[in-house]
Amino acid sequence: MITRFMAVVAYDGSKYSGFQIQPESPSIQGTLQETLSRITKQPSTIVGAGRTDAGVHAKGQTFHFDSSLSLTPDEWKKAFNSLLPDSIYIRSVCEKTVDFHARFSAKGKWYQYRISFGEYDPLLANYVYHYPFPLDIDLMEQGAKLFLGTHCFQNFCTNHEEGIEMTKTLSDFSFHKENETLVIDIRGTGFLRYMVRLMVGTLIEVGRHHYTLDEIKKRLDTNELIPSVYKAPAQGLYLMEVYYS
Amino acid sequence: MITRFMAVVAYDGSKYSGFQIQPESPSIQGTLQETLSRITKQPSTIVGAGRTDAGVHAKGQTFHFDSSLSLTPDEWKKAFNSLLPDSIYIRSVCEKTVDFHARFSAKGKWYQYRISFGEYDPLLANYVYHYPFPLDIDLMEQGAKLFLGTHCFQNFCTNHEEGIEMTKTLSDFSFHKENETLVIDIRGTGFLRYMVRLMVGTLIEVGRHHYTLDEIKKRLDTNELIPSVYKAPAQGLYLMEVYYS
Repeated sequence: MITRFMAVVAYDGSKYSGFQIQPESPSIQGTLQETLSRITKQPSTIVGAGRTDAGVHAKGQTFHFDSSLSLTPDEWKKAFNSLLPDSIYIRSVCEKTVDFHARFSAKGKWYQYRISFGEYDPLLANYVYHYPFPLDIDLMEQGAKLFLGTHCFQNFCTNHEEGIEMTKTLSDFSFHKENETLVIDIRGTGFLRYMVRLMVGTLIEVGRHHYTLDEIKKRLDTNELIPSVYKAPAQGLYLMEVYYS
Repeated sequence: MITRFMAVVAYDGSKYSGFQIQPESPSIQGTLQETLSRITKQPSTIVGAGRTDAGVHAKGQTFHFDSSLSLTPDEWKKAFNSLLPDSIYIRSVCEKTVDFHARFSAKGKWYQYRISFGEYDPLLANYVYHYPFPLDIDLMEQGAKLFLGTHCFQNFCTNHEEGIEMTKTLSDFSFHKENETLVIDIRGTGFLRYMVRLMVGTLIEVGRHHYTLDEIKKRLDTNELIPSVYKAPAQGLYLMEVYYS
C-alpha cells in the first residue's frame, strides 16, 4: 500500500544552488530525492511547497512523497537525517491522505528577512544582510503597511509568464529588533518569484530616502509594468513555515 | 620608516584549514599574508597571537605586521577589508612600538565554547556543538572550578615537545545559558594545543556521568601521563579576545 507523507525540512541555503533540482549543481530537492532513493532503493521524487533561490535558507520548508515502505513517520525522520548532509535536517514527518499536496494544499507562508546594522560579522556572512548605513525604519514600516491586504503584485515579481496569478493577500509585514538586527516577518497567501526580496529591497530604498512611499503605491494594483529593481540579497531570507488548513 | 601595527581579526574557521599557513589548503595566516602582500606590493608576513585549529572561529584573534607604507590604522583596516574574503574581517588596526609582539606580548586569552541542547539546526552546523542529550551542568560547573588557578596542564594537551611550558593559570571558567545554548567562557594566561577542547570534552564526560570529578583531579598537577581523550569538536570553539597589558 502506498502512503503519502509530509515532511518539514530546514536547510542552510548557502550550500546549494536553490531548492529546485539542477543538472550540474547541488540542490535541496536533488539531495532530498537522492536520500529518499537510497532509503527506498528505487528512484524517488519529492514535491516541495515551493522553490527557494540560491542562498535562501529554510527553517520550515515542506514537501511530500509517496512510499510503500512500512516505516513510521519517526522512522522516516531518522532514516532521512542519518543520510542527509549536516546542512539539511528533517524536523518532522507525518502521514497524510493522498489528496494532500505540499504545494496545492498550502494556504500561506511565513518568510523572515534579517538585516544587520552592527559591525560586520564574518561568521554571519551567509546568514544576514549586513547594511551598516542609516535607515528610516519608521518610514519603512509605513511602506510595509501599503503591501498588506490583497493586491496585484506583478511589479514585485520577475516572472511574467501567462497564467500566473499575480494577486496575493498579505496578512503580516511587521518589524522587530533583535540586538543590532532588524527582523522583518512577512506572512501571506502566496508569494511570486523574488517577491519578498523585491518588497524588502524597495523598502530599503524608502528607508534610505531614495524612494518615497509613492514608488510603492504606483507599483501596486496597476496594469502598467513598472518593475521593482532593488532586490535584497538572498542570504538575509528565511522560509520559516508553510501553512496548511 | 618601518612601523609596526597590531590588528584584531574575526573569521569563520569552517572555511579554513586553521590559522597557520599550509602549503596546499587555505589558511587564515596565508590569506592575511596574501592580502598584505597585495597592499604592499611585496612579499609580506604577519605574526599571529597563536594558532587556531581547522574549524575553530575567532571574534578577536590578533596579529602584528611591519610596513613602510604610510597608511593610517583606519586606512589599513579599509585596505584589508576591501580585499579579504567575506569570511575574514579586520575589526581594528592600531600602531605599536617595535617591541610589541602579537604572541610574546600577550598576557592572556579569552575562549568561548558553545554547546546547543535544542533541536538540531542545520544553519548552525559549523557554529555550535549540538549535544541533545542530558548533561549534569551543576557537576560540570564543579569540575570547571578544579581547572581554575595555576596548574600543570600536560594531560590536557597533545603536544609534549620539550621546552613547552605546561603550567598555565586560568582565571575564569564560567557557564551561562543563552536560550538553548550553554556558553562556557574560559580565560587564562595561556593555552596549550587542544587544551580548551580537551577540558570541555572532559567536562562533557563528567556531565553525562561517564567520569567523576576525580578523573579531572588525577590529571592535573601530576608528572604521570594520563592523557585526556575526549576532545570537544572544533566548531563550538571561538577565540574571543587576546589580552595585552
